Amino acid sequence: MHWREGYIAVDWGTTNRRAYRMGAAQSSAMFEDDKGVMSVPPGGFPQAVAEIRQRLGDLPMLLAGMVGSNRGWHAAPYVACPAGLDEIAAKVRWVDDRTGIVPGVAQRSASSPDVMRGEELQAIGALADGLVAADALICHPGTHTKWIAMKAGRIETFRTVMTGEIFALLAAHSILADAMRGQATGGAQFAAGVREALGGEPLLSALFRIRARRLLGDGAEDAASRASGILIGSEVAAALAEFGPHRVAVIGRPALCKLYGAAIELAGGESFSIDGADAFLAGMTSLTEVLE
Amino acid sequence: MHWREGYIAVDWGTTNRRAYRMGAAQSSAMFEDDKGVMSVPPGGFPQAVAEIRQRLGDLPMLLAGMVGSNRGWHAAPYVACPAGLDEIAAKVRWVDDRTGIVPGVAQRSASSPDVMRGEELQAIGALADGLVAADALICHPGTHTKWIAMKAGRIETFRTVMTGEIFALLAAHSILADAMRGQATGGAQFAAGVREALGGEPLLSALFRIRARRLLGDGAEDAASRASGILIGSEVAAALAEFGPHRVAVIGRPALCKLYGAAIELAGGESFSIDGADAFLAGMTSLTEVLE
Repeated sequence: MHWREGYIAVDWGTTNRRAYRMGAAQSSAMFEDDKGVMSVPPGGFPQAVAEIRQRLGDLPMLLAGMVGSNRGWHAAPYVACPAGLDEIAAKVRWVDDRTGIVPGVAQRSASSPDVMRGEELQAIGALADGLVAADALICHPGTHTKWIAMKAGRIETFRTVMTGEIFALLAAHSILADAMRGQATGGAQFAAGVREALGGEPLLSALFRIRARRLLGDGAEDAASRASGILIGSEVAAALAEFGPHRVAVIGRPALCKLYGAAIELAGGESFSIDGADAFLAGMTSLTEVLE
Repeated sequence: MHWREGYIAVDWGTTNRRAYRMGAAQSSAMFEDDKGVMSVPPGGFPQAVAEIRQRLGDLPMLLAGMVGSNRGWHAAPYVACPAGLDEIAAKVRWVDDRTGIVPGVAQRSASSPDVMRGEELQAIGALADGLVAADALICHPGTHTKWIAMKAGRIETFRTVMTGEIFALLAAHSILADAMRGQATGGAQFAAGVREALGGEPLLSALFRIRARRLLGDGAEDAASRASGILIGSEVAAALAEFGPHRVAVIGRPALCKLYGAAIELAGGESFSIDGADAFLAGMTSLTEVLE
């Protein structure tokens, strides 16, 4: 396959997809829409994939993310840890001779089973671009945040934390929902929440205090930021205790990376941010170099 | 007021209400329905209260629970900790000369603000019935579980944990919802979840493993029980660490008391159960004796 002449890289998640035209011989282009895996009807993937080629060109294609899950197009079974570029490349699932689905990574362990699908490419991409070292701690914040310990250039172990999903559930459906309108920002209330969590306050108790303060007349606080601080602070405290001191590479959306960076700093750690889309494309590029 | 000749005690919560006819000179009777505070339309409380008297008799009435909140009939402001029977009785809000609303209890503290409304009566009732000592640790499991430290017969401090609400959110709306059908039971999966939490696993990480195990092919586990064990185990570990060794009085619905009792035992503690409805009525009885 002559990937260098041009190909399409697709990051296809549960609720949206991003498709990029890549390669030296083609002008770059991309689009993003809300046709996530869950919105594709049964049997609808061939047409949804054909649409991508109609928009970006009749090119070879690599797809990553939930498109390779059992709710996606074709299941691309997980590669076991430790997993690096070579292990992932070897397990690409070929739908036809120019269309491949990138596998996720699994930690097969009785005590700490875990899975990722999509984040592995960003970790590999950040490494390939020299943005993280071969031994590194990566945080990939999101609905299900991943903490990834890289060793000798491979994903050695990782841990998922449901921080983003719980934040969304609280904001949409909980007794705190009325108070949590608006986005979380990294101001004083966020920092207060992080400090509460770093001080060892149980998560589900610190969250209820947002409600208690309002009932007791201190209703002026920014509840979304406070809740975000409690949740992220709790996660950061546990991760730094588990993985030890590291300069954490935070890969993801810039606004969310900023919140995690602030929490890591309050916990006495150091961090730097890497744009998630850039890391994804770097990962796809390094994958095509191995598949060449 | 001659409470002994007969009165009505109402436990009026957010989503349902229970009303009891009490007193030596009257036969006892009760009803329960789903006319919780949130279902009463604006201005509808006088009629909703009149209905209770139509069903149980034209008697003096004491009401407790969310009916005294700012979403209820009339706000009965919180009594500050430490609070015992006398402090609560002194702050009953009289709507008319035979209809009173029992106040909740507040912990006014910059670092650990907290509120309860309804649970205080059960704690006072368990004490009045001699079921708990004047110095005791009470756990009141529910949507917002309360851990109450009693000292010299008064509520000295307490802590709310949103365990029940988070369990309900996970079961209804999360990525675990499909797996969490059915009630949590106190079997092997519950115990495994408790042990995971007691071992120090971060809550939101242990919960995700339920998902990971299913994706990795171990789909047979009872996810509702496992999630319940993780949540309750996490709560019990923190409470026993905070309040020290105690024989915990667990007051509430029998099925839920049983789960908490099992978790406390796995944590190396001891507990015994008290029926929540019995404790509520004992609290109301001791309150009428002070109000006499």
